[in-house]
Amino acid sequence: MPLSPLIAITQGDAAGIGAEIIVQAFLQRPESLQGCFVVGDVATLRRACHLFVRPGHPPIPVAVINHPLETNHIPSRCIPLLALDDPPDLAAFGQVQATAGAFAGRCIQWAARAALRGQIQALVTAPIHKEALAAAGGPWNQYPGHTEMLQAATAEHLHCRAQDVPVRMMLANRELRTVLVSIHVALRDAIAQLSTASILETIHIAHRALQAVLPQAPRIAVAGLNPHAGEGGRFGQEEIDIIIPAIHAAQQQGVLVSGPYSPDTIFMRARQTTTHAPEFDTVIAMYHDQGLIPIKYMGMEQGVNITLGLPFIRTSPDHGTAFDIAGQGIADPSSMLEAIEIARQLINQRHAVGT
Amino acid sequence: MPLSPLIAITQGDAAGIGAEIIVQAFLQRPESLQGCFVVGDVATLRRACHLFVRPGHPPIPVAVINHPLETNHIPSRCIPLLALDDPPDLAAFGQVQATAGAFAGRCIQWAARAALRGQIQALVTAPIHKEALAAAGGPWNQYPGHTEMLQAATAEHLHCRAQDVPVRMMLANRELRTVLVSIHVALRDAIAQLSTASILETIHIAHRALQAVLPQAPRIAVAGLNPHAGEGGRFGQEEIDIIIPAIHAAQQQGVLVSGPYSPDTIFMRARQTTTHAPEFDTVIAMYHDQGLIPIKYMGMEQGVNITLGLPFIRTSPDHGTAFDIAGQGIADPSSMLEAIEIARQLINQRHAVGT
Repeated sequence: MPLSPLIAITQGDAAGIGAEIIVQAFLQRPESLQGCFVVGDVATLRRACHLFVRPGHPPIPVAVINHPLETNHIPSRCIPLLALDDPPDLAAFGQVQATAGAFAGRCIQWAARAALRGQIQALVTAPIHKEALAAAGGPWNQYPGHTEMLQAATAEHLHCRAQDVPVRMMLANRELRTVLVSIHVALRDAIAQLSTASILETIHIAHRALQAVLPQAPRIAVAGLNPHAGEGGRFGQEEIDIIIPAIHAAQQQGVLVSGPYSPDTIFMRARQTTTHAPEFDTVIAMYHDQGLIPIKYMGMEQGVNITLGLPFIRTSPDHGTAFDIAGQGIADPSSMLEAIEIARQLINQRHAVGT
Repeated sequence: MPLSPLIAITQGDAAGIGAEIIVQAFLQRPESLQGCFVVGDVATLRRACHLFVRPGHPPIPVAVINHPLETNHIPSRCIPLLALDDPPDLAAFGQVQATAGAFAGRCIQWAARAALRGQIQALVTAPIHKEALAAAGGPWNQYPGHTEMLQAATAEHLHCRAQDVPVRMMLANRELRTVLVSIHVALRDAIAQLSTASILETIHIAHRALQAVLPQAPRIAVAGLNPHAGEGGRFGQEEIDIIIPAIHAAQQQGVLVSGPYSPDTIFMRARQTTTHAPEFDTVIAMYHDQGLIPIKYMGMEQGVNITLGLPFIRTSPDHGTAFDIAGQGIADPSSMLEAIEIARQLINQRHAVGT
């Protein structure tokens, strides 16, 4: 039997639901978790395992490994853990703790470096808490989230600046993929910062990412910014001044891209269902909610966040730490399972197309 | 048998799909069309009927009426038509024609006045074409669309100014209702024009409209403007400066309203499905696409536009004139049928709560 590709799952903020959705994933779908190991600390993972031990049943064993390659030699009923040195005291559930923020950061950094060195084939991240990261002091407080940390680790590896590693967020579920030009900025600023260069870069990042996984040339649709995509300038000039030039430039560079389309119908047109063949393989969304509203509308159990532009595969569930329910064992692992599944598909597809 | 409530259906722009979706609606669901009559011209409606006559079958008869009250005396296999005087020559399909724009305007004005006089119980409008309206000259060229025309007719009836008839667009399908603070303006301007007063007015208009049709106090959710509703000011100040004060003011006035909620999850939370009970009866959307994207995501066959704030019931399908397929008999009448159905429900619910 060939060995499974290796996937590191960072445990996220120990005060949140990260460890428990990981344990649930291992328990619910052991066959899907082949080749996966956790990056974290023993006490946090053991506490999460304990939540799911049924009375009269044996504990769920955590098997500490020292190198990713050991993962495939651990018995399937164990959860492989790559435990980092010097973990902090066990975090209290549901509270912002600087020590938990810093340790979550260390796990991500370890996993990013492992991915960059080719020791793992993909990285799946459980949610972290922005305030804990901010409270953790340097270097963690300079990163608003995962993306910036992964960007910094990549820049370090490639000996370039972080801004020379342009990344974009793709959100995907079983029906729809969307790639966002901007994410966590005020809508007013998202509009002010919109540029032909940023849209063109987003189109190229999406194109390269999809080219690596689709058998045919990816069909990319670009959403407008304004109602009805501006109706030829009647409701805003951004389509004419900014978006259309980016589309034309990408077309001239050979990308199969079209638009701008009316934002209120383009997501429906790109939807893949049993009764609807998608007209496009992805939609470029001009701002966070334009892409997130349709992704989350169907229920967010299976939404997955994929970071594009990095030299490695990284996915994550599209929800947060859920401090309000952490430690109760009731968090839904569906999005985590889907993030793992998508990471595995991306690995297989990259292999299939020979990249 | 009690007589059906009277519903006028304006034929819309004669160059578009209006007349043919109306005829399809009469043919497909005669029982749902009880009490409905068309406002338009004989030639346009006859041409549309002719599209659906099967070889060897008799023509579909159009019965001209002189007053809405005659509708319920017309045999059910006929389509009742209130034909306005001096119709223009038959419009060519798929072309902007000033005469078609002007006649569409006259039909709407006639129906609005009939509704204001209490001669009909609801008004359902087939789509018009903005350019044809603009080409039609005064007074039609001063109205960007139906809403402004209905507002003007109401102001005339009430002897007030159009701006004293505040209206809002509600979009509804079988899962979701949303009321928009603004509609056809550039996104940049929608943000600039957002005010506590306009949001508060939207909340009140939605509250009154839903109060008239729901058995319990309507639960109103207000969406934020920015990603994650601004995260306490980190991604934009509009929630703090503009939206929250409107919510507080409405709460103090006794409205069951809450928010601002993260725009990417609030529509999912308000969704009514067989497996999901909605947390709210409607979502107040800060701009056009915020509300329209989730409404249209599921496919727009059954989306309906309801104008709130008018002293009469008005609904319409949420699609346009579809000039590209007009005259082929292939336009989908689902949204028109749903608009008629919703108008009828609104009539019944208003009766039930005694308004």
